[in-house]
Amino acid sequence: MRDRASFTLLGSDGDARAGVLSTRRGDIPTPIFMPVGTLGTVKTVSPAEVRACGAQVILGNNYHLYLKPGLEVLEATGGLHRFMNWSGPILTDSGGFQFFSMRHKAKFDDDGVNFRSHHDGDPHRFTPESVIASQRTIGSDIMMVLDECLALPATQKQLEQAMRRTTDWAKRSLAATQPGDGAVFAILQGGSDIALRARHRDELCGLDFDGFALGGLSVGEAPAVMYEVVGATAPTMPADKPRYLMGVGTPQDIVECIARGIDMFDCVMPTRSARHGQAFTRSGRENLRNQTHRLSTEPLDPDCSCEACTNYSRAYLRHLVRAKEHFGFRLLTIHNIRYYLDLVSEARSAIIAGDFAEWRKACFERWDRGRENG
Amino acid sequence: MRDRASFTLLGSDGDARAGVLSTRRGDIPTPIFMPVGTLGTVKTVSPAEVRACGAQVILGNNYHLYLKPGLEVLEATGGLHRFMNWSGPILTDSGGFQFFSMRHKAKFDDDGVNFRSHHDGDPHRFTPESVIASQRTIGSDIMMVLDECLALPATQKQLEQAMRRTTDWAKRSLAATQPGDGAVFAILQGGSDIALRARHRDELCGLDFDGFALGGLSVGEAPAVMYEVVGATAPTMPADKPRYLMGVGTPQDIVECIARGIDMFDCVMPTRSARHGQAFTRSGRENLRNQTHRLSTEPLDPDCSCEACTNYSRAYLRHLVRAKEHFGFRLLTIHNIRYYLDLVSEARSAIIAGDFAEWRKACFERWDRGRENG
Repeated sequence: MRDRASFTLLGSDGDARAGVLSTRRGDIPTPIFMPVGTLGTVKTVSPAEVRACGAQVILGNNYHLYLKPGLEVLEATGGLHRFMNWSGPILTDSGGFQFFSMRHKAKFDDDGVNFRSHHDGDPHRFTPESVIASQRTIGSDIMMVLDECLALPATQKQLEQAMRRTTDWAKRSLAATQPGDGAVFAILQGGSDIALRARHRDELCGLDFDGFALGGLSVGEAPAVMYEVVGATAPTMPADKPRYLMGVGTPQDIVECIARGIDMFDCVMPTRSARHGQAFTRSGRENLRNQTHRLSTEPLDPDCSCEACTNYSRAYLRHLVRAKEHFGFRLLTIHNIRYYLDLVSEARSAIIAGDFAEWRKACFERWDRGRENG
Repeated sequence: MRDRASFTLLGSDGDARAGVLSTRRGDIPTPIFMPVGTLGTVKTVSPAEVRACGAQVILGNNYHLYLKPGLEVLEATGGLHRFMNWSGPILTDSGGFQFFSMRHKAKFDDDGVNFRSHHDGDPHRFTPESVIASQRTIGSDIMMVLDECLALPATQKQLEQAMRRTTDWAKRSLAATQPGDGAVFAILQGGSDIALRARHRDELCGLDFDGFALGGLSVGEAPAVMYEVVGATAPTMPADKPRYLMGVGTPQDIVECIARGIDMFDCVMPTRSARHGQAFTRSGRENLRNQTHRLSTEPLDPDCSCEACTNYSRAYLRHLVRAKEHFGFRLLTIHNIRYYLDLVSEARSAIIAGDFAEWRKACFERWDRGRENG
């Protein structure tokens, strides 16, 4: 038997849910945001810092880790957890999304996908089975199945073919698991077509997965379209399994999708934005390069208790960002991750307290006020 | 009165000395290595990490800080210590060395130096008095006088003119200090001419400075030449004042110059090398990009107790360096600073124990063995 994950629903408020996802490496309170650590490090920060931000689970990426450092290295060094010194749960994406991003270098067939490494152009092939095997080598606690993710808009025929393959591959993935493997999540496709999403839900949600993800969103469609698809689909997914919206999103997206029944999120936004000098705060976004911070002795966010906000002024952060000092990118990364995790933690408390709607309204009012003042 | 630094000699072994330099922000055991934090951050590491490496004092740079973030920012935010969240002593270099590095953009006269910012080409002027004033704004605990540093080889006439100016400027610097200022160190020039060095020592060492530095070394001359100049000069400098060899050097240089009576060192080598994937260990240098580390579960240096060596394998460090991940550069920086500080700390213990010569011999034997095995 694989090391299943189990989900306990603790409360709900409208479609919003609060729960606990138990994995073999620890419990994850939901809703949760998962910082992205593509290459065996959450960029610019240490595992201890990620933990201090409140992170309970981080993401790895099967495609990237397979290429660099490579499975041989991960095998020799005892798996990703030991390699990167992170003892908590790790969820790994399969690589399906990377093939979407690099679509001209990846060629899908019914059995798998041929692709060229973005490092050196060398040819490789992934199948649903090989992707489960490599996530096993990585030591993933939550493995994602290989899926075919399409750019939107796509034709009905393309969407149906991708769904058919993804369903077939999901079944093959389950069959390929072995005793000792981590949990496995399936990925629902169907683009922005609500009827197709419902069909794919029906195809996949009866299968023996530990959780279900919505893939193929936040790939170019308008936020309102995404909210509509999530709102129509998530609440109809199994209530006793976690629901994971892949690759989403802004703080606003996260609040809106928690409202529509999503439990798990990941996104490069807080970490990537930090490396561009952007911070997320309770009053909205801040560009630390901005001249207005030049002489400011204020913290980035007075209500935040992260390392950056408790020890440094906006003037210092601006200086570091302008001087391209690593430490500045680190401090902003720490702040942004903390902000995202505070956000989902506050949402969770509000759901349990039954005042999620008011909390959500207050969030948006504060962001709006920040925009007016900024 | 300025906040003087005082030096207590605790022991010596040959010309090597062990002591304590007391400053207004704390005591510094000597010999000491001072990590370089040019722009208000020791590149890639936090103040807490620098402290955890054993650092007792860090360097700032008056030239760089004057241009970026600028004195107005440092004044508004309460000085460099508060700005960067470092409560220990800070020594600031005057900028003399930067004018040497950018010699075609700096023009010396008897009163001061005109230069253009390396950021935007804007014209600026430093005088001995302005440099004391800006180090006051920075909040420096040990201020260095403005000096004229020459590239070697230089003509006797050039060397004598630079010495004359440096002596004159040293006197003007002392006269420009105010109550509440930090300690002030003078800088001895004279190139690799031992007689000129002796003359400059005689000119400066009778003046009321808190310490004396050797400048204008490690600027292109062979190590043997530097060792000769240091060996002939340092032991004849005032025994009751700290002796600081600026911008030096490799671990070998540091051991050799401690042997010749130097108490204080700074160098970008451990921090800059780290950002190029180079580590210093008890067995010599390691290039972490090297294929030999690919599958290695060994720590970088088994005798080191830094964050990198206690938590991560060579394979992981190699992966991070190859992937250009900030966290890798940070871990190597932490290791290298720790190594330099362990080195001077071991030297100090050996001096106090009276077995410095054996310790020095053992260091070189280990480095030589590492080279044979590497």
